[in-house]
Amino acid sequence: MADFENIAKQFVEYYYKTFDTDRTQLQPLYRDESMLTFEASPCQGAMAIVDKLKNLPFQKVEHQVATIDAQPSNPSGGIVVIVSGALLVEEERRPMSYTQTFQLLPDGANSYFIFNDVFRLVYPAA
Amino acid sequence: MADFENIAKQFVEYYYKTFDTDRTQLQPLYRDESMLTFEASPCQGAMAIVDKLKNLPFQKVEHQVATIDAQPSNPSGGIVVIVSGALLVEEERRPMSYTQTFQLLPDGANSYFIFNDVFRLVYPAA
Repeated sequence: MADFENIAKQFVEYYYKTFDTDRTQLQPLYRDESMLTFEASPCQGAMAIVDKLKNLPFQKVEHQVATIDAQPSNPSGGIVVIVSGALLVEEERRPMSYTQTFQLLPDGANSYFIFNDVFRLVYPAA
Repeated sequence: MADFENIAKQFVEYYYKTFDTDRTQLQPLYRDESMLTFEASPCQGAMAIVDKLKNLPFQKVEHQVATIDAQPSNPSGGIVVIVSGALLVEEERRPMSYTQTFQLLPDGANSYFIFNDVFRLVYPAA
């Protein structure tokens, strides 16, 4: 597996584990220039993003990852990561499909931050 | 609507109109460094990508776009574009959900080329 694929996989595991446990802990993954578009609603900056995530209308949440795709996004080590999977909120037994796209950029300290983040529920086409 | 959102919208319209009419005409949108990951199968370069698209196991195809999201991806004018929608192939009446993520980069001639392209069918979670 290429390096960027390993990084993508580790990132996705860490991201959703943290999201599903305590989403306020995601703040260090974002920066002032980071962008989130959550169901068409945009915001920018680590604080605004985590505020938005905190205020989503569910407390209990579980992400079940089905697929992870990754590609290098620029010559400086950026990576685009595309996830599809299922989302379970509260006591709801029927999962919803979702897709989430990230662009990770190197943070200059041997790690990465999230520059782009786009989340969408995917409704059955039929 | 911000500039990058207009560009994303125009790109998406052009891309699927061309795909659904004659996908070989997509070649000018890709370059040698372009990457496509189609249902987890990766390839690189305009010729290889269009070859892959040409050889997909359907002739007649229709993309119905449901959502388009876009964000700037770098300071040089790159744009990430995330599409979700439905795909109808051949005479099949039941559409399949899909998601496709692009990164567009400026081509230096007032237009854009596709640097990243990741396509996934999304199966109902329930």
